[in-house]
Amino acid sequence: MKPVYIAGAGMTKFGRAEWSLIRLASEASRSALHHADLGEIPVDGVVVANMGAARVNKQTALGSALVDQLALYPAMAEAVENGPASGASAFKVGCQAIASGMADVVLVTGVERMRTVNGLEGTDFVASLSHPEAEYIYGVTLPSLAGMFARLFMDRFGVERKHLAMVAIKNHENATKNPYAHIQQTVTMEGILTLPEAAVNNPPIAAPLHMFDCCPVSDGAASLVLVSEDVAAKLGGPKVRVAGIGQATDTHAVHEREDPTDLKAVRIASEKAFGMAGATPSDVDVVELHDAFTILEIAESEAAGFFPRGEGHLALERGETALDGKLPINPSGGLKAKGHPVGATGVAQLVELVWQLRGEADERQVQNAKTAYACNFGGFGNNVVATVLRREG
Amino acid sequence: MKPVYIAGAGMTKFGRAEWSLIRLASEASRSALHHADLGEIPVDGVVVANMGAARVNKQTALGSALVDQLALYPAMAEAVENGPASGASAFKVGCQAIASGMADVVLVTGVERMRTVNGLEGTDFVASLSHPEAEYIYGVTLPSLAGMFARLFMDRFGVERKHLAMVAIKNHENATKNPYAHIQQTVTMEGILTLPEAAVNNPPIAAPLHMFDCCPVSDGAASLVLVSEDVAAKLGGPKVRVAGIGQATDTHAVHEREDPTDLKAVRIASEKAFGMAGATPSDVDVVELHDAFTILEIAESEAAGFFPRGEGHLALERGETALDGKLPINPSGGLKAKGHPVGATGVAQLVELVWQLRGEADERQVQNAKTAYACNFGGFGNNVVATVLRREG
Repeated sequence: MKPVYIAGAGMTKFGRAEWSLIRLASEASRSALHHADLGEIPVDGVVVANMGAARVNKQTALGSALVDQLALYPAMAEAVENGPASGASAFKVGCQAIASGMADVVLVTGVERMRTVNGLEGTDFVASLSHPEAEYIYGVTLPSLAGMFARLFMDRFGVERKHLAMVAIKNHENATKNPYAHIQQTVTMEGILTLPEAAVNNPPIAAPLHMFDCCPVSDGAASLVLVSEDVAAKLGGPKVRVAGIGQATDTHAVHEREDPTDLKAVRIASEKAFGMAGATPSDVDVVELHDAFTILEIAESEAAGFFPRGEGHLALERGETALDGKLPINPSGGLKAKGHPVGATGVAQLVELVWQLRGEADERQVQNAKTAYACNFGGFGNNVVATVLRREG
Repeated sequence: MKPVYIAGAGMTKFGRAEWSLIRLASEASRSALHHADLGEIPVDGVVVANMGAARVNKQTALGSALVDQLALYPAMAEAVENGPASGASAFKVGCQAIASGMADVVLVTGVERMRTVNGLEGTDFVASLSHPEAEYIYGVTLPSLAGMFARLFMDRFGVERKHLAMVAIKNHENATKNPYAHIQQTVTMEGILTLPEAAVNNPPIAAPLHMFDCCPVSDGAASLVLVSEDVAAKLGGPKVRVAGIGQATDTHAVHEREDPTDLKAVRIASEKAFGMAGATPSDVDVVELHDAFTILEIAESEAAGFFPRGEGHLALERGETALDGKLPINPSGGLKAKGHPVGATGVAQLVELVWQLRGEADERQVQNAKTAYACNFGGFGNNVVATVLRREG
């Protein structure tokens, strides 16, 4: 693939938005464009990542809407949907636009405004990404899939509820250092697990997962400016290159997998991304994983190749994935505490990594980060995009 | 751009579908894959074009769903949304995947199952692609935009209702030769315009447009198999190359355009596509235009460069755009009679052109067609994709 660079990154604060869907998208976009400092260089293409505006916001043609808000005509534009991996899918599409030679500058903006559909309608909306005939019609929800996955995974590898809590504690702590995070509040082992009042404050959602094992429902937008090698050479500032991208699908229905605890699509997508990058997991300095549920951070950290199978929770327990550990995971706070506006998430993961690689992550900066990895987990593992970014120079 | 070829094309009959959304998509896909006859060559990527399944079918993650139906894992997959131009946008994304080198074989399938939301909800669904704050909230609908456009265009260029009827008559006639068309029934000038009962049979929808100036609401799917030059060389059969693609946006709201009768995005997208193809409109043998409303076929035939401004209706009147004319437009029957399952349309236009270029269009075959052009018109002209296909050898 022809080289693709990320010249700018920006996002809105995740949480409950007063702004409209397109206002959210345009604010994140303006922030990324400002960061990229393109001067007179035009934007050739816009790719919007979004899962459900057609339903949730009764709005379609988001590509055209964002081009219009930013007055970028006649730039090319469209929206990409891939469930919770919409963000990284749109990023991949943007990279391909540049690598194909059809564009030199592409704006990739992920956005979701979904807090307006909280409650049962919101649960139903998210569940619409499950298998329509083998899961959805039987009432499967994402928390229920995650609960079943967690029980199986915990039984097999000796993972305990305290390990899940450790993910939450770490990510909430990281989020207090991230001004863009939805929840900027620490949690403790006592508060969510051992004290008697934990039973009330941290109720079960889908056993063995409790409330603090689940990400919040958030509104927000995140944006990246992708550029060709020629344009990157003209711009000042640090150079962050898209070293590798891999995407893989698995059976749509979770129960059809030979071993549901084996996140095969994470494994294959990661192998592809590392292969394209000419790198291995041991080269990585900072990681963003898709912890929509705490158990997923542990499982993905193994499937991506950072820890042997069944040992992710041990590395976590040893503090290796903490902000000051050997391999910081989710310095942003992750989906768990930064929030999860579905279409924005995959882009926001890369926004955090771009900031980390440029040394712009302030209080949560991972020192000397040169190589970064992100996993955007679509469906319940049926469609995964892995990305390796590298700082050059 | 690296060469991209179309190795196979297929579609379902448009109309009212008994099949589910994914069944529609998978049947069209199987038909295109059968046509391509890939043998052991794997599909690397799937791009689904769809506008509103999140709302209309309460289904998302369509890329994963189609990969699953066809058992194509671990192929990459996502869905692309660009209003009525979703089909050609997805096609462009598929071409970029191949031209970037990330894929050698990409399946592009457009699908919409929208007859279930007929009536006011259907009108509201389609209107969701208009400008959210400058059009949608004031009750703008697509027919109302088309009506205003038609009045302005007809006044300025002396186009009469009989010219609109000529588009309908021609396209309905063509559709009787297309077994995949939704409406396979001829109409006459008398029946829809001059006889007294025409007032009843062809009532006004948004004056000056009447029912037979508007496309039907259809379900359906259409699919293309795109391949790299290497794969194309391995396959038998005629070679259809993607000679040029152009995409352009204009203001989201129609009233913000300096001259709403000037379809600027059609003009720019077409110039880009012809530029990439190293061709001019006079090289084209067969055309598919986006006649969601009859007036649009006339206006687009000028903006794409086939006829001078204000003279499209005269060429139509002279029979030049008839199946046996100098430049057959919409041999498939067009959106007007073939139908308009929104996400499928842009793909279906190219399916027809591939069949035409391969000499497989049976009764509606345009003789010696070597170069073909399609215009997929998104929004009300705010996002347009133009494509030039060429038969090689």
